[in-house]
Amino acid sequence: MTERILGVLGGMGPLASAQFMLRLTLLTDAERDQDHVPAVLWSDPRVPDRTRGKLSGGDDPLPWLQRGIAGLRQAGCGAIAIPCNTAHGWYREMAESAGCPILHIVDAAAADLARMGIRPGRIGLMGTQATLNMRLYQERMDSLGWDCLTPTQAQMDRNVTPAIGLVKANRVAEAFEPLAEIVNDLSQRGATAVVLGCTEIPLGILAGPAEHLRAPVIDTIDALARVSIAWARGSA
Amino acid sequence: MTERILGVLGGMGPLASAQFMLRLTLLTDAERDQDHVPAVLWSDPRVPDRTRGKLSGGDDPLPWLQRGIAGLRQAGCGAIAIPCNTAHGWYREMAESAGCPILHIVDAAAADLARMGIRPGRIGLMGTQATLNMRLYQERMDSLGWDCLTPTQAQMDRNVTPAIGLVKANRVAEAFEPLAEIVNDLSQRGATAVVLGCTEIPLGILAGPAEHLRAPVIDTIDALARVSIAWARGSA
Repeated sequence: MTERILGVLGGMGPLASAQFMLRLTLLTDAERDQDHVPAVLWSDPRVPDRTRGKLSGGDDPLPWLQRGIAGLRQAGCGAIAIPCNTAHGWYREMAESAGCPILHIVDAAAADLARMGIRPGRIGLMGTQATLNMRLYQERMDSLGWDCLTPTQAQMDRNVTPAIGLVKANRVAEAFEPLAEIVNDLSQRGATAVVLGCTEIPLGILAGPAEHLRAPVIDTIDALARVSIAWARGSA
Repeated sequence: MTERILGVLGGMGPLASAQFMLRLTLLTDAERDQDHVPAVLWSDPRVPDRTRGKLSGGDDPLPWLQRGIAGLRQAGCGAIAIPCNTAHGWYREMAESAGCPILHIVDAAAADLARMGIRPGRIGLMGTQATLNMRLYQERMDSLGWDCLTPTQAQMDRNVTPAIGLVKANRVAEAFEPLAEIVNDLSQRGATAVVLGCTEIPLGILAGPAEHLRAPVIDTIDALARVSIAWARGSA
């Protein structure tokens, strides 16, 4: 039994943070309720769109993110997990004011790549337009020996961005095909694994037949859940 | 977009409250993140076992429940949903101190029975031993014209109680068969529908083939999600 309470800054989107809570539970080694990780989920889907905030002068999400973290801290949380990749574009500002560790989703994805035995070389990276433009993953992955291939701009516009929108509108099953097409194209271009670097993307990918995918994928929801459990158990 | 923030007192068990968050999202009519219901989930699986608390002098869960509600109130929540049927055994005490409405899961189940067109007469009721012994459902259902058939004591001991434990230990798929057997036996005894009056039970039932069930079931997770969305939309 742990005394560490995990704070989950969610709602971005709400389906991704609900799935995070489900996976946090299912990935925990437990025999009864009391063995599971205590957690508070702050699911505020009203946070202004992160991609618009970074790329096209939309409302600034930072005050909303900081308000959520303050609420989680007040509830007694000792670390924060954020199951939204794009929100990590404000990581430095959030970490400076949080007063507790924020478990970084890119570090979690890197740990999962290593766990799966993915050798240095080319990997694929999918994410929101903002995550790719900010180069949230690229430098970190490069320093670890993984070279990130990203979708073309046409693939972003035709497949990835609309599919993320479909998941946010609860049209999860429809998101599978356009996303799987990009996973398979990145694989054909030489990626030995594909990081699903937006938490809506694994939801779409899980809604279709896994046997249609021609590369292993890194689910950043699961990756973040694993480092969260390690933190709660005092081993991270 | 709503200004109403839903508080979810969860962790009992944690898989049930994560599923509640997922269903709250999927049952909401939404086109983008900002259309979804703002919610805070207090998932504290350390709450002492509710059945043991009611039936065999185990630690009192009430102070833990009240602490969770206080945390949710501090976070700005305007109503509380509790995706745990047995915890409603402390409904009166919680409602007296909450300072805001607590959406009752038995009322939610009754609304779902009506929505599904289940006529007055015999229905089946499954739940924890404490929920059945407390008669949490029976009087309310009786007043609405539904007569509750419950599993025999042998069925509780051999099937229902162990299956609830399997879900809490993440062994969800194994819970299907013992639970489906009881649904079908209640149907054979004359139940026109079966209320799954413990939030672990629908998780087990959803993990197996629906075509093996010989009666419609009321999923109390979904039922509570529906009344929660109605509250958030200002229509309840």
